[in-house]
Amino acid sequence: MPHLVILYSGNLDHPPADGGTDMRALCRRLCDALLTVRDEQDRQVFPTGGTRVLAFPAAHWAIADGGAAGEAAGRGGDYAFVYLNLRMAKGRSAEVHRRTGETIETVCKAHFATHLATRAIGITAQVDEGHEVFDAKNSSIHPLFAPPPKA
Amino acid sequence: MPHLVILYSGNLDHPPADGGTDMRALCRRLCDALLTVRDEQDRQVFPTGGTRVLAFPAAHWAIADGGAAGEAAGRGGDYAFVYLNLRMAKGRSAEVHRRTGETIETVCKAHFATHLATRAIGITAQVDEGHEVFDAKNSSIHPLFAPPPKA
Amino acid sequence: MPHLVILYSGNLDHPPADGGTDMRALCRRLCDALLTVRDEQDRQVFPTGGTRVLAFPAAHWAIADGGAAGEAAGRGGDYAFVYLNLRMAKGRSAEVHRRTGETIETVCKAHFATHLATRAIGITAQVDEGHEVFDAKNSSIHPLFAPPPKA
Repeated sequence: MPHLVILYSGNLDHPPADGGTDMRALCRRLCDALLTVRDEQDRQVFPTGGTRVLAFPAAHWAIADGGAAGEAAGRGGDYAFVYLNLRMAKGRSAEVHRRTGETIETVCKAHFATHLATRAIGITAQVDEGHEVFDAKNSSIHPLFAPPPKA
Repeated sequence: MPHLVILYSGNLDHPPADGGTDMRALCRRLCDALLTVRDEQDRQVFPTGGTRVLAFPAAHWAIADGGAAGEAAGRGGDYAFVYLNLRMAKGRSAEVHRRTGETIETVCKAHFATHLATRAIGITAQVDEGHEVFDAKNSSIHPLFAPPPKA
Repeated sequence: MPHLVILYSGNLDHPPADGGTDMRALCRRLCDALLTVRDEQDRQVFPTGGTRVLAFPAAHWAIADGGAAGEAAGRGGDYAFVYLNLRMAKGRSAEVHRRTGETIETVCKAHFATHLATRAIGITAQVDEGHEVFDAKNSSIHPLFAPPPKA
C-alpha cells in the first residue's frame, strides 16, 4: 500500500491544445510525491515498492448540467472531472492522513493550474483507510528496495 | 459530491443490434435524475456542479457459469453485468439515501427494460456514504452554478 | 454479490512474450474458484448467478521508483501491478472471509507464478464487506440458476 486510483473524464486524454493533459506525467508526479511523505518521527510513510498510482479514463460520462452554464460563462461546455482516491492501510495517524491528502492536493493544484484557471474542471481528492476483512500481498517489487529508513 | 461510478461488462458497448446499449445516454439520464432528488425539506440534495457520472467498460470479465445456463434457457450465453456505485458525502438521512438509490434504480430499470426482458443481465445499484479521512475539492465548475435553492 | 474488481497496470495486456498475461483467463479462473467456496456448513457461499469478475487495465500508471531498482537487479524496469478487490455482502463469518480471500490469492499465485519469479510485479488481494446504505438488484441471470444447495 498505498494505491492511488484516479478516475477521470476521458476528455482529459485529448491533446493539450484541445484541453487535455499528460495523465502519465501526473501519475509519476503523484507517485514521487507520495514517496516524500514523512510521519511525525520523520520516517518515510509509504514503502517505495508498495506505492502505486493507476489512472482510468471513463469511456462515458455526464457532469453537472451537461455544459450549458459553462458555455454561458465562456468556459466551454466540455466539463472535465478528476477523482483521486487513495486507499492506505489501517492505523496511520490523523496527521499522516492530512499530510498525505495535502500532498496529493498540492500536486493536483499545480498540475491542473491552467485548467482550473481556463476551463470548467472539478478535482476531488479523498483518502480512505482500508477496512478490509482479508489482505494478501505477493510482490517481487518489494524485495528490490531496502525497508524505509528508520532515522 | 456525489460520484456515481458505473463498472460494466464491455459487451454492453456493442451496437444495440448486438445486445449493447447507449451508455453515454444512461450517464446523462442518471445525472439528470440525481439533480432532481430532494430532501425532506424539499431542497435539492446534490449541488449541480458537483454531480458526476463516470462509466468504465471492463476489458475482461467472467460472469456466473460463463454462459451454459443462459444458452440452455434460450437467453444466450453472453451475460452482461452493470454495477452502479454512488458515493455521497457523510451525514445525509436514511430517507435521502433511499430516495437517491431508488432514483438510480428507476432510471436503470427503464433504460434496461428490454435487456432485462430478453437477455441475461444483472444490474446492481448500491449507495455508499463516504468515510474518507481526508477530503479536498478544487473546482471551476461549482462557481458556474448558484447554490441549491433553499425553498 | 460478490463483485471482484481487478485494477491493473496496462502492460499486463501485452503479449506473453512481452511480459503480459491472459487476463480474460484469469477472470474465468477466479470466477470458477469463487463458486467453489463453501461455508462452515459446507454450503456454496456465493450464488452462481451473482458472481462476477471485472478487470480494468489502467491507461496510465506509476509504480514505486519508476524502474531503476528493477533494472539494477536484472528484473527489468517495467513494473506491473494487480489489485484485486472483492466486495461481498455484509454478515459473512470471518472464516468465510478467510476462505474467500485465500481462494483468490491461490488462483493469483498460480496464474502469476512465472511473473513473480521473473519480473517485478506486485499483487494485492483484499476482501471488503460492503456497508452500503442502499442496495438494489435487478437480474435476469439469477433465475437461470437454482438456489445454492442447502445440504
